[in-house]
Amino acid sequence: MIDIIGIEHMAIAVNDFQDTRNFFEEILGLKLSNSETIEDQGVITDIYNIKNGKVEFIKPLGKDSKIIKFLKKRGPGLHHICFQVKCIKDSIKYLKENDIKLIGDEYSIGAEGYKVIFIHPKSTGGILIELAEK
Amino acid sequence: MIDIIGIEHMAIAVNDFQDTRNFFEEILGLKLSNSETIEDQGVITDIYNIKNGKVEFIKPLGKDSKIIKFLKKRGPGLHHICFQVKCIKDSIKYLKENDIKLIGDEYSIGAEGYKVIFIHPKSTGGILIELAEK
Repeated sequence: MIDIIGIEHMAIAVNDFQDTRNFFEEILGLKLSNSETIEDQGVITDIYNIKNGKVEFIKPLGKDSKIIKFLKKRGPGLHHICFQVKCIKDSIKYLKENDIKLIGDEYSIGAEGYKVIFIHPKSTGGILIELAEK
Repeated sequence: MIDIIGIEHMAIAVNDFQDTRNFFEEILGLKLSNSETIEDQGVITDIYNIKNGKVEFIKPLGKDSKIIKFLKKRGPGLHHICFQVKCIKDSIKYLKENDIKLIGDEYSIGAEGYKVIFIHPKSTGGILIELAEK
């Protein structure tokens, strides 16, 4: 089984941060918690802590970023959801045993230093799902 | 100002619930909390409570459902995020004063009987945002 602790964040793909910063900071009055470059995933991320959860905006880092294709095809919008799990290794083992399609074979290091893996939308009903262990 | 209590849910548009129920219930081991028809929004919704938040799957109710266009254009995927607010009337007043584009002029009654209004993606940086008062 996968031991899900809760929803860690939802990630929204955008072309740049200007409009989202305007709306989230000036209109909603939220504070930017963290802005970080994640080389492995080819993204820069703006993170807002909203009491019981996090909203992350991600924009492409360079021309080879994986989210450029997403943005071209679908435009700005919600990109994936992330569940926090107790143990990423056990989760990966369990998913593999159940023939769930993962992106990559092992976990990588994501935003805020978490151990993360993505589950392919083909196995979830159409949604990109990330699992993260803190 | 808008008094945001937290993230209420994220909503994911799908064509039907079979694949998401398989993955969320059989693989992730989550229980369906509620399944509801929301005539006003032309959707049927499956709600999963995941400890600190909710994931809602929405599928079209009938041929005139607003999310059919979304599904045709973008395919299954995350559709909107919902923030819980203290007072929907105050929030609407504040947004109107700040020339933020709303969908509809007043709140309507959404899932679980909440008072809800949607903010147009043009005003938020590209994301459909719902505000809800319990």
